[in-house]
Amino acid sequence: MTIREASAQWQGTLKQGSGRLLLGSGVFEGAYSFPSRFENGPGTNPEELIAAAHAGCFSMALTAILGAEGHAVENIHTIAKVHLGATTAGPTITRIELETEADVAGISAEDFERLAQKSQGRLPRLAGAGRRRNHHAQGEPHSSMKRKEKTNDPGIDHRHRLGQALRRDGGNHAALQ
Amino acid sequence: MTIREASAQWQGTLKQGSGRLLLGSGVFEGAYSFPSRFENGPGTNPEELIAAAHAGCFSMALTAILGAEGHAVENIHTIAKVHLGATTAGPTITRIELETEADVAGISAEDFERLAQKSQGRLPRLAGAGRRRNHHAQGEPHSSMKRKEKTNDPGIDHRHRLGQALRRDGGNHAALQ
Repeated sequence: MTIREASAQWQGTLKQGSGRLLLGSGVFEGAYSFPSRFENGPGTNPEELIAAAHAGCFSMALTAILGAEGHAVENIHTIAKVHLGATTAGPTITRIELETEADVAGISAEDFERLAQKSQGRLPRLAGAGRRRNHHAQGEPHSSMKRKEKTNDPGIDHRHRLGQALRRDGGNHAALQ
Repeated sequence: MTIREASAQWQGTLKQGSGRLLLGSGVFEGAYSFPSRFENGPGTNPEELIAAAHAGCFSMALTAILGAEGHAVENIHTIAKVHLGATTAGPTITRIELETEADVAGISAEDFERLAQKSQGRLPRLAGAGRRRNHHAQGEPHSSMKRKEKTNDPGIDHRHRLGQALRRDGGNHAALQ
């Protein structure tokens, strides 16, 4: 069991006040505010932190799962996008998208897709998605894959796009559109 | 609709490799690794980022809800602890705890507790907890409250401790044990 922590300090009203976030490791402390969260103000916000957690977790999980099947990982780059929408219940995360490019020698598109799906099961489960996932794998050109995942929970729609580069010698990274 | 993003770059094997996390706002980029996540190595990890997101989100939500009922917030300090446990499914977030101290003039313990519970409903929902929450509010001394929340999902046990200081002039902040 590992326990990780962080803290937040808020002063003042919602719209005019300001906050500070501090990671337990001490490697980051920064400002957040109503404008940095809901508008375009400078500073961080909870949603990009969740995005970073997902991108980081997924990249490690994919590395672990590829490694367990004997595939050496040169490089994995993952972008996570967290959608914050307005609902009657207030601001709600309605969708999380992952886009991954991985540089792995000698793996087929099918194997990569299978292992990427497996990796996704390692992510922190959000919003009731854990037990209501429906997978919709789609065939795509050899070096580019998309995968969509939706839940029956109207409050969440995880959508993941996964891509890879098959040849690390050729620099032939798949472009994800 | 607001979309926030972050990215992760991983190179090498799970245990010897290393990663970088970059927030979309650009205010933080830092290293993470197997030791920073599962051991005591330097760097950040996904779990403390989720902790920061929860602490930050809860503090803002509580400010908003207190403000909507006419209570001026002087200061709110929230600590979030994310428990990462080993399960048969791999590393899993098994519990998230929140501890809050708030400096709010002229609010009763009961009202604070009620509004803190309401604020918690604004948090990003994790691990299927959204629809299976059971609230167990417990009576406590006037200036200190605890609240436990458990779900029926064996994979998650959100526990929240909430405290407040009633008198901002006296500096009489409740100690949370």
